[in-house]
Amino acid sequence: MAVQINENYLLLKSSYIFAEIARRVQKYQNENPEADVISMGIGDVTKPLPGAVIQEFKNAVDEMSNAETFRGYGPEQGYEFLIEEIIKRDYVPRGIFIDNDEIFISDGAKCDTGNIQEIFGLDNVVAVTDPVYPVYVESNIMAGRGGPMGEDGKYEGLIYLPCTRENDFIPELPESPVDLIYLCYPNNPTGTALTKEQLSKWVDYAHQNKAIILFDAAYEVYIQEDNIPHSIYEIEGAKEVAIEFRSFSKNAGFTGTRCAYTLVPKEVMGYDREGKPYSLNLLWNRRQTTKFNGVSYPVQVAAKAVYSKEGQKEIKEYIEYYMKNAAIIRENLAKLGLNVYGGVNAPYIWVKTPNNMDSWEFFDLLLNEAQVVGTPGVGFGPSGEGYFRITAFNTLENTNEAMERISKLSF
Amino acid sequence: MAVQINENYLLLKSSYIFAEIARRVQKYQNENPEADVISMGIGDVTKPLPGAVIQEFKNAVDEMSNAETFRGYGPEQGYEFLIEEIIKRDYVPRGIFIDNDEIFISDGAKCDTGNIQEIFGLDNVVAVTDPVYPVYVESNIMAGRGGPMGEDGKYEGLIYLPCTRENDFIPELPESPVDLIYLCYPNNPTGTALTKEQLSKWVDYAHQNKAIILFDAAYEVYIQEDNIPHSIYEIEGAKEVAIEFRSFSKNAGFTGTRCAYTLVPKEVMGYDREGKPYSLNLLWNRRQTTKFNGVSYPVQVAAKAVYSKEGQKEIKEYIEYYMKNAAIIRENLAKLGLNVYGGVNAPYIWVKTPNNMDSWEFFDLLLNEAQVVGTPGVGFGPSGEGYFRITAFNTLENTNEAMERISKLSF
Repeated sequence: MAVQINENYLLLKSSYIFAEIARRVQKYQNENPEADVISMGIGDVTKPLPGAVIQEFKNAVDEMSNAETFRGYGPEQGYEFLIEEIIKRDYVPRGIFIDNDEIFISDGAKCDTGNIQEIFGLDNVVAVTDPVYPVYVESNIMAGRGGPMGEDGKYEGLIYLPCTRENDFIPELPESPVDLIYLCYPNNPTGTALTKEQLSKWVDYAHQNKAIILFDAAYEVYIQEDNIPHSIYEIEGAKEVAIEFRSFSKNAGFTGTRCAYTLVPKEVMGYDREGKPYSLNLLWNRRQTTKFNGVSYPVQVAAKAVYSKEGQKEIKEYIEYYMKNAAIIRENLAKLGLNVYGGVNAPYIWVKTPNNMDSWEFFDLLLNEAQVVGTPGVGFGPSGEGYFRITAFNTLENTNEAMERISKLSF
Repeated sequence: MAVQINENYLLLKSSYIFAEIARRVQKYQNENPEADVISMGIGDVTKPLPGAVIQEFKNAVDEMSNAETFRGYGPEQGYEFLIEEIIKRDYVPRGIFIDNDEIFISDGAKCDTGNIQEIFGLDNVVAVTDPVYPVYVESNIMAGRGGPMGEDGKYEGLIYLPCTRENDFIPELPESPVDLIYLCYPNNPTGTALTKEQLSKWVDYAHQNKAIILFDAAYEVYIQEDNIPHSIYEIEGAKEVAIEFRSFSKNAGFTGTRCAYTLVPKEVMGYDREGKPYSLNLLWNRRQTTKFNGVSYPVQVAAKAVYSKEGQKEIKEYIEYYMKNAAIIRENLAKLGLNVYGGVNAPYIWVKTPNNMDSWEFFDLLLNEAQVVGTPGVGFGPSGEGYFRITAFNTLENTNEAMERISKLSF
C-alpha cells in the first residue's frame, strides 16, 4: 500500500495556458534581451487603483495598528459593510433585491468558479462553451467529472457548446440534457455578449431541465449596449436556477489586490438522489465556512471604496480608456483585412487568424515579428483553434505601438 | 433528471463548532444585554499588527496608486521576495535548505489544510488525532473519504488517534495502515507538543508505510522548550514524507489580514494505482495555479515586514504577553483543583472538566455563571468530551478578570 494521488490530475493534458505563454515569452526574451515585448495576452489591468480606494485601503491598514480598532478573524462570508454596498449599488438599481446572506465575498472569481463545483455531485453532466475560460473545465476534470481527453481535444465527459463565427459566437442549447452550465458574459475569451433574449433561453432551459447556470459576470462593467444584461438576475426566473460570480479585478483593478464575490440566491436548489431539494446557498456557506477564512479586512474596505463617488468617477475613466484601446485594436486589425469580433461590450478582441494559420502559429508570428503577445484561441478550447485573443488592458501608447508593428506585417 | 448536490455534505453532522458557539453567545447576549462576556473561545489574536508591518503594508498600498509601481496579477505561488525571506529566516537557521518553488504563499492555513486533500485519491485512509482541528476532518468528509458518522461520534471511514490524559496527549501509531496523517503540533486544541523523538516515530512510520504526514505548524512561534521541533523537517527523512503548513496569523496577528504558506518538498511523492511515483509539489502547483490567484500584493509585503528587526522585536513581546496569559490561566485553574494541560508551548490551555461534566455543560456553566466563553472539547472530536479549551489571546486584564470570575464558582 502507498498513498494514492488524485489520478484525475493526470488527465490534464497541458499546463495552464498562461504558464505556457509565459514560458515562450521568457524564452524569446532570453534570446532577445533588447526586445521590447508588448503584452496583450493575459487579461490583466494596467491602471493603478483609484485614489479613493488607496486612501480607504490605507485608513483600514491604520485601523489594524491599534488594539481598539484591530480586526482579527472576520466573517468567512465577508463584512456586512461591503455586502450591503454591493447589493445597494450593483443590484437594487437593476430591480434585483437580495438578502445579505446571499452574497459571499471572496479573494477572487477564479477561486469561486473553480471551487463552486465542489458542492455538486460527481455524476452531473457539465456543459461549457467552447472556447472557454480554462478554470471551469480543469476544476471539473480534477474532481473527476471530465474523463480523458479525446483526439479532438475535448474531455469525453464534458459537453462542449461551440461558439464560432458560424453561429455568431452564440452557443446553442445542448442536444442532450446537462446539469451544470458555465456561462461567462460578456465573454472571456471572445469578447462577445448575450442579449436578454439570448440569455433568457438558457434560464428557460435550466428551469425545464432542473439545471444550474454558473454565470460569470466578471466583465459586466464593460457593457456599453443597452440590451445586454449586467446580471443574469435581470432575467425573470433566474434566481431559481443561477449562481452569479462578480469581481473587483476588471472593473477596479483588483487583480493584484484580490476581492470578488459570489451571489447564491436562497431559491436556487440542488437535489439528492431521491429528488429532495437542498439549498445551494447553505451548501456554499458550509463550504466557505469550512475551507475559507474571509478576505483581508483592509482589502474589503478598499473594495467598498470602489463604490464611492470618486471611486466610481475614476473607474469610469479607466473603463473608457480601456474601451478606447479596444476600438483602436478593432479598427486597426479590420483595416488589415482581419476578421475581428468582440471588443464592444468587453475588453477582449477575438481575431480570426489569417491564411488558415493555427492559433500558436499566429502567436509565434506576432511574438517574433512584432514583439506583441496575445493569447492563442486554441488555449481556450478546440473551437478556439484559428482564433486569437488580444486584450485592451495595455496603455494607449503601447496599444498604438502594437498596432503599428502589426500593420507592418504581411499576412 | 435534475442537478445533483454533493451528498457528502449531508454527512456533516453539525455546524462548524465556532458557529454554534457564536449562536449560544449571541443568545446569551440578547437575553443579558448588560453582560460583559469575555471571549476565550476562538483562537483569535487581540494584539494589533506590529508597527513595522503597518508601515510596509501602507507603502505597498501606495505602490498600487501609481501605474509605474502598480501590481496586477502576481505569481499564484507568491512573490519571490516573501518566499526567500521565509526560507532564510524560518528554515535555514534550523539547518533546513529548501528551494523557492517548494513554498506556496496562500491566504490561510485553514484554506491550505482544507484544500490539500484534493491532490490525493479518494481511497486513501485518513488518520486524525482526536481531538482535532475540525477542518482536517470535514474537508475529507466533503470529498467522500469519511463515510457516515457512527453512534460514537466518529466518521466510519476515518482513523481516530485518541489523545487524552491517559496517554499524555501523545497519539499512538495506528493499528491498521493509514495513508494520510494530519498532525498539528504545537497542538490545537490541546496545547500540547511533541518532542523530536516523538515526532520521529511518525516520520519513520510514514516511510515504512509510504504514508504522508500533513504537518500543521501554525503555532510554532509559541514553542518555549528546547527539544520541541519548530518544523517537521528538523526530523531526518521528513522531506520525503511530509508537507508543512505555516501561517502569519498566530505569530504576527494576521488572522484578519490573511497570509500563510505551505511547504511541499520536491522529494515528497504520491503514487498511482500502478505504484508509479508523482511529485506532490507539482500536483499542488497545478492545483494552486488552476484554482487560486495569489495573495494580495500589499499583504505579502506586510508579511515580509514581519521578519524585519522591529517586526521581530514586537512579535516577541506579543508572544511573551500571550504566554504570560497562558501561565496565569494554568496557575489559576490549577489552584481551583482543575487538571490543566498545554499552555507551555502553545497559546491553548486544555482543561479537564470537573465533576464529570460534559464539555457543553461546562461551556454553559462558564458562560452563564462567569460570562466567560471557551470552546467545548467535544467540538474537536469524541475524545475531547469532558475537556474544554481556553485561549491565551485575550488581554492581560480580561484574562485576570476571567480567572477571578471563574475562581468564584464552586465545582
